[in-house]
Amino acid sequence: MFNKILIANRGEIAVRIIRACREMGIQTVAVYSEADRDCLHTLLADEAICIGPAPSNQSYLNIERILAATAAVKADAIHPGFGFLSENARFARLCAECNITFIGPSAGIIHKMGNKSEARRTMIDAGVPVVPGGREPVHEAEEALAMAKEIGFPVMIKASSGGGGKGMRISRSAGDFREHFNAAQMESVKGFSDDTMYIEKYIEKPKHVEFQIMADKHGNIIHLGERDCSIQRRHQKVLEEAPCEAISPKLRKKMGETAVKAARAVGYENAGTIEFLLDKNKDFYFMEMNTRIQVEHPVTELVTGMDLIKEQIRVAAGEPLSLRQEDVAIEGHAIECRINAENPSRNFMPCPGLITNVHIPGGNGVRVDSHIYAGYRVPANYDSMLMKLIVFDKDRESAIAKMRSALGEVIIEGIETNINFQYEILENDTFQKGDTDTGFIEKEFPEYVRSY
Amino acid sequence: MFNKILIANRGEIAVRIIRACREMGIQTVAVYSEADRDCLHTLLADEAICIGPAPSNQSYLNIERILAATAAVKADAIHPGFGFLSENARFARLCAECNITFIGPSAGIIHKMGNKSEARRTMIDAGVPVVPGGREPVHEAEEALAMAKEIGFPVMIKASSGGGGKGMRISRSAGDFREHFNAAQMESVKGFSDDTMYIEKYIEKPKHVEFQIMADKHGNIIHLGERDCSIQRRHQKVLEEAPCEAISPKLRKKMGETAVKAARAVGYENAGTIEFLLDKNKDFYFMEMNTRIQVEHPVTELVTGMDLIKEQIRVAAGEPLSLRQEDVAIEGHAIECRINAENPSRNFMPCPGLITNVHIPGGNGVRVDSHIYAGYRVPANYDSMLMKLIVFDKDRESAIAKMRSALGEVIIEGIETNINFQYEILENDTFQKGDTDTGFIEKEFPEYVRSY
Repeated sequence: MFNKILIANRGEIAVRIIRACREMGIQTVAVYSEADRDCLHTLLADEAICIGPAPSNQSYLNIERILAATAAVKADAIHPGFGFLSENARFARLCAECNITFIGPSAGIIHKMGNKSEARRTMIDAGVPVVPGGREPVHEAEEALAMAKEIGFPVMIKASSGGGGKGMRISRSAGDFREHFNAAQMESVKGFSDDTMYIEKYIEKPKHVEFQIMADKHGNIIHLGERDCSIQRRHQKVLEEAPCEAISPKLRKKMGETAVKAARAVGYENAGTIEFLLDKNKDFYFMEMNTRIQVEHPVTELVTGMDLIKEQIRVAAGEPLSLRQEDVAIEGHAIECRINAENPSRNFMPCPGLITNVHIPGGNGVRVDSHIYAGYRVPANYDSMLMKLIVFDKDRESAIAKMRSALGEVIIEGIETNINFQYEILENDTFQKGDTDTGFIEKEFPEYVRSY
Repeated sequence: MFNKILIANRGEIAVRIIRACREMGIQTVAVYSEADRDCLHTLLADEAICIGPAPSNQSYLNIERILAATAAVKADAIHPGFGFLSENARFARLCAECNITFIGPSAGIIHKMGNKSEARRTMIDAGVPVVPGGREPVHEAEEALAMAKEIGFPVMIKASSGGGGKGMRISRSAGDFREHFNAAQMESVKGFSDDTMYIEKYIEKPKHVEFQIMADKHGNIIHLGERDCSIQRRHQKVLEEAPCEAISPKLRKKMGETAVKAARAVGYENAGTIEFLLDKNKDFYFMEMNTRIQVEHPVTELVTGMDLIKEQIRVAAGEPLSLRQEDVAIEGHAIECRINAENPSRNFMPCPGLITNVHIPGGNGVRVDSHIYAGYRVPANYDSMLMKLIVFDKDRESAIAKMRSALGEVIIEGIETNINFQYEILENDTFQKGDTDTGFIEKEFPEYVRSY
């Protein structure tokens, strides 16, 4: 087992990793930017090293400084957390070259999965379903219609150069196809001087369902069930839960086996997540693979009982997985709310500043992962997440009731937060019924969703 | 189900009960003394009623005021928590007469189990092992020796009027019996002008092991395994854990069945605890039954998954138990440390006062049950418990490591606490080996244990 781990991250996830290491008897080294001298991860680790000024590229993204710090303290491994360098193939490769264990998959895998088209090709080769279409550019309406018929309606007509909804049209049948194609292409030519179009399957009202993967160095790969992360705003997850209400044990088995197959196809190692879109017909499509621990990993921990950070460390040290697939049991229901320093009424504008008072809920089935404290100044330089409030109960209804009760107890004074917005989500009928898709926030909370 | 529950208690356990009610959709009413206007339970409940001055007999023990408050707010049930009126048979009877559900067993059961000699007699009749001897007073050494031989050595010679160790002697064989009997009797005559003595079995280095019982109104009674509460100071529990290291599944089954038998013998209802002494030979002896929820109930919740407060409420409302005995599984290991406002270096003198700063640990498997916050003034009128820090992990060793890590993160400023003392317990070799008995603190921490 490792003697000393350097945590190449900050805030909540750094605190989470430090705690896991302490419990395992492993020495911890924090790195921190000049803006994070008083951040909890800096205070909590056995050692702490300043690696530069606040801007991330001068500190948390500065590979050379982090490797130098690791060498200086003689740490034998680096945990990258999420964000920052966690999916940086060059960093993983340099770690390996410096004989430092990077707690995650190899540089080659990170690179392969980080390239969207290569990842897609790999998944197709492995027999994992992907969103059909979208591979060949097309310029002519007739040729595009033939493609659309092959893919099956509805389809999304997308301008290659498009963005922000421009040059995009949904076509629901051959009858309306030409009209929509021409309109989208016209928009693209006008807006981007480019008539290159793609046709792909339009997934209606999909759920974002992701499977947690864990793999050791001995070829064992398991999945730990799914998380429903459909509650998103601009592709940022807001609230996550496990398991997903829409998934039967049979579908879980099928999707889980597909996720394991996907991981096996790339010779995966350590923790990873396979993200799928799940449509109303329970068909699912590979979106991407995240080659790191996720923000929302605690909901999986609570329903499976596996400590994912400790497992990451153990498998990185060469130990076999602590569970076999047949021993993984999904029990109860967990929900995570991300509490952010942001103002939902002002387009979720980040609201850094001094936290003057904190009161954190507790009790049975309530977990809090956070790095904040009274007197902590939230810097403007990093993401706005302050706290993950996570609850566990016997079923979804009970977990929602528990989260409402726990949210009602949170006090964070001095800065704006999204606590009330989270409370409104929990109060929402559609949410309570579990009938959510990735368009949930836009549809149910139009007053909060403004375009720039 | 109840519409509104009045919580006839204060502090941590009142907060615990309020949370359970909120999650169940039940309205809550707090009662508070004049010293508790700013206590968290007062602030958290849907309604709060002042029931009198700080001294408990004028407020939390004032039955008439509590019943009047219950009637005034039209609550249909009262949860008594622990301490205060929780084992007051008259209170339970008056509740019943006022048509208010007392969340606990009937007045008759409370009365019967509250009377130590009647409880002992009931257990003997039910075939539950009790500490042998101690039933008949004795005045003559020869008669006492005959009793001792019948009970079996070692025996405890106890003066009827004795106390604080005075008039007590241990005799290990017939050879030394007369000498010890005469010395103890002499001490009693000198100290208390009473030569009445009792002889009972001396249980050497026992563990305090208690079984959690839950019973519904339909005759179903289950046990939820045991708690090891051997870490005590002057019969006050300091640290509790579940399960008990010394208990095999076979012994758990045997003791559990005995506990259920004991509960069945009195027609028990709701939550209760059967306390046993467990000796080195794994023989166990009934000590007493507590007819209420216990401070240390969370460790049982964490290893069984049952929410004991919610279950209390449900069975009081007439619902059947949510689990059958064969569905109760003990998984993992839980430890609770009681964090008190007291000074271990000054004979654990209570240290009330203003809490100026609080930082509470979090993370995977860490539970905090507490009523404190920064700016809260701990009143001198009540017990000194500030917080229950509870951890859960896969085994005892991991749970100890987790508790050490979590304790290291707790910050409570402004008043003295026993946090460091708890940390020393966790660092202790004998504790880590699980080789503890009720004499642990006296033996291992003599520097802290002074007599008055």
